[in-house]
Amino acid sequence: MKTVTQTLNVALGERSYPIHIGTDVLSRPELVLPFLAQKRVVVVTNTTVAPLYLDEFRSGLEKCGIETLPVVLPDGEQYKTWETLNLIFDALLAARCERNTTLIALGGGVIGDMGGFAAACYQRGMPFIQVPTTLLSQVDSSVGGKTAINHPMGKNMVGAFYQPRLVLADLSTLDTLPDRELKAGLAEVIKYGLIRDPDFFVWLEANLEKLLVRDKSALAYAVHRSCANKAEVVAADERESGERALLNLGHTFGHAIETGLGYGEWLHGEAVAAGTLIAAELSCRLGWIDADSVARIEKIFVRSGLPVKAPDLGAARYLELMSHDKKVQDGKLRLVLLREIGKAVVSDAATTAQMVDAIEARCT
Amino acid sequence: MKTVTQTLNVALGERSYPIHIGTDVLSRPELVLPFLAQKRVVVVTNTTVAPLYLDEFRSGLEKCGIETLPVVLPDGEQYKTWETLNLIFDALLAARCERNTTLIALGGGVIGDMGGFAAACYQRGMPFIQVPTTLLSQVDSSVGGKTAINHPMGKNMVGAFYQPRLVLADLSTLDTLPDRELKAGLAEVIKYGLIRDPDFFVWLEANLEKLLVRDKSALAYAVHRSCANKAEVVAADERESGERALLNLGHTFGHAIETGLGYGEWLHGEAVAAGTLIAAELSCRLGWIDADSVARIEKIFVRSGLPVKAPDLGAARYLELMSHDKKVQDGKLRLVLLREIGKAVVSDAATTAQMVDAIEARCT
Repeated sequence: MKTVTQTLNVALGERSYPIHIGTDVLSRPELVLPFLAQKRVVVVTNTTVAPLYLDEFRSGLEKCGIETLPVVLPDGEQYKTWETLNLIFDALLAARCERNTTLIALGGGVIGDMGGFAAACYQRGMPFIQVPTTLLSQVDSSVGGKTAINHPMGKNMVGAFYQPRLVLADLSTLDTLPDRELKAGLAEVIKYGLIRDPDFFVWLEANLEKLLVRDKSALAYAVHRSCANKAEVVAADERESGERALLNLGHTFGHAIETGLGYGEWLHGEAVAAGTLIAAELSCRLGWIDADSVARIEKIFVRSGLPVKAPDLGAARYLELMSHDKKVQDGKLRLVLLREIGKAVVSDAATTAQMVDAIEARCT
Repeated sequence: MKTVTQTLNVALGERSYPIHIGTDVLSRPELVLPFLAQKRVVVVTNTTVAPLYLDEFRSGLEKCGIETLPVVLPDGEQYKTWETLNLIFDALLAARCERNTTLIALGGGVIGDMGGFAAACYQRGMPFIQVPTTLLSQVDSSVGGKTAINHPMGKNMVGAFYQPRLVLADLSTLDTLPDRELKAGLAEVIKYGLIRDPDFFVWLEANLEKLLVRDKSALAYAVHRSCANKAEVVAADERESGERALLNLGHTFGHAIETGLGYGEWLHGEAVAAGTLIAAELSCRLGWIDADSVARIEKIFVRSGLPVKAPDLGAARYLELMSHDKKVQDGKLRLVLLREIGKAVVSDAATTAQMVDAIEARCT
């Protein structure tokens, strides 16, 4: 089934860019051409996505006279490292890519984060385009310019704010997405409902099954509404001096899960789901939301097939891992917590003891 | 001898910052304090500079209640690599440095470039201060926000534009600078005269010996005038879309020398000196400057004790190395050349054959 292509704008002054969302945008090179400064692009992708979509994407561009140089990386969060990033630099230099050559990231969040960081750093910055092929990257990581690699001591610790020139979200790529990845993407979709869009949360409660069976109009609606939420937040606070931090609901706990288990064990969205439940639990213990709201949040994650219990790393290990969080200020951990379903705040109100209680209550 | 502290401003809107130039700025913590968001800083330095100036610099800050965490790296261009950069990230994470912790680079160009790039990337950007301790870093690399590490295939190929909040150039640190380093710094000083400040070039011809014997007022004048030139260029073209490229006179050939010989063999300023003579030679062969001008340029570099002949890597190897230059556009190498002493241009006018001739004429 085809859907009409919808276009959103991320309003960032001279760094503004469009997001095109549709079922055939991957094979519409005319959407890309106006953004190219050269008749050559580098396409960074991985071993899973390349056999599925690289040829389709390249051939459209090649027919328009654009030379495409593919860089195929191993697949998985455990490869979001300097070593893998350096494979991109090696390829760019070997092919004599220039400051005006465009780097296109074709893949999920890991490819987008690494491709974007490589583009930010190569010759101190080359043009960059995101072509996200997973639900998670379409609704979240491809929009807003956060790029990074992981460090053994903390997720996304080394990176840059670097905006793409264009985002192409092709919904047809979700047809080949493994179920586990689709569900992981739903965690970030639900997040928008929880932090700032209560009507969307209600819509998700009513339409979750459609998303799970990959109904294209439901997916188109969810991707568009998620991106609209993200674009609004990013336009208001590009470099996370305030509101943007709300997008990290569940992420402080989630990053601790990912780093603590070893990158790649849990998918990012899975860790965010379990982390969101800890945040909800803590918000409840602070008296901000009631137990019914926690149950309602748990229910939508359960229906999405996502984990609602975190791995038992021990509360002390959680605290240790969380101490590297980017929201720590003057030694004090700040968390994204819920005031109600549809309203998140950044707060340092929770004591360490309360955090420990919430973590222990939500660990298996 | 003490000199009065002079202050310049790099006018970059909300990213504007002061450069303080004087003989005691290293021990004046009151210049640093207004820029700190936290009572903690990281001081990145190297094994050569640490025994000379780290204690003096730290103790001033510590007396004001600022905790200082030193990170001491090996010294030399050959360490301007990802591996060394990662030592900074390891230290920042182990000490739980935050997004608001300030990173201070205390050292020469390599420390400034790596410290700045680490600051640009750590948690996607932390505040950064430059305290340059060599002539080269005081007159050039500490100002303007270019940060980078080297790649085996090309110098400064991976980096960021990332402005410091403050630059402290303490002229008394030049007392301990090895002669070879002092001379290397003069290459960049002379550059400003050649590319845009003919009166300064004449002043340098008249006052070079004073600089070589480290006369403080002469050094103060030269550092100030160099920084004033650089600040003007950077304010007009922060990200090198035009005029800023002129600051790279001699650098395309110079970077080829550094990469070709192996990083650390020649000092950056030495490679720039020899590279500038090739650029002058080529400008002469294009009929833009006369042989007398080339001789005049050669003479001031000879008097500075700098190499005026490039190492014989073979012209083909030079061209190969130069093909990675950041000024290459659509496969065409653009060079900074001289229209007269005091006026440089970026040009693709030279043919490959002319480049080969100029290189061969200026190789030992």
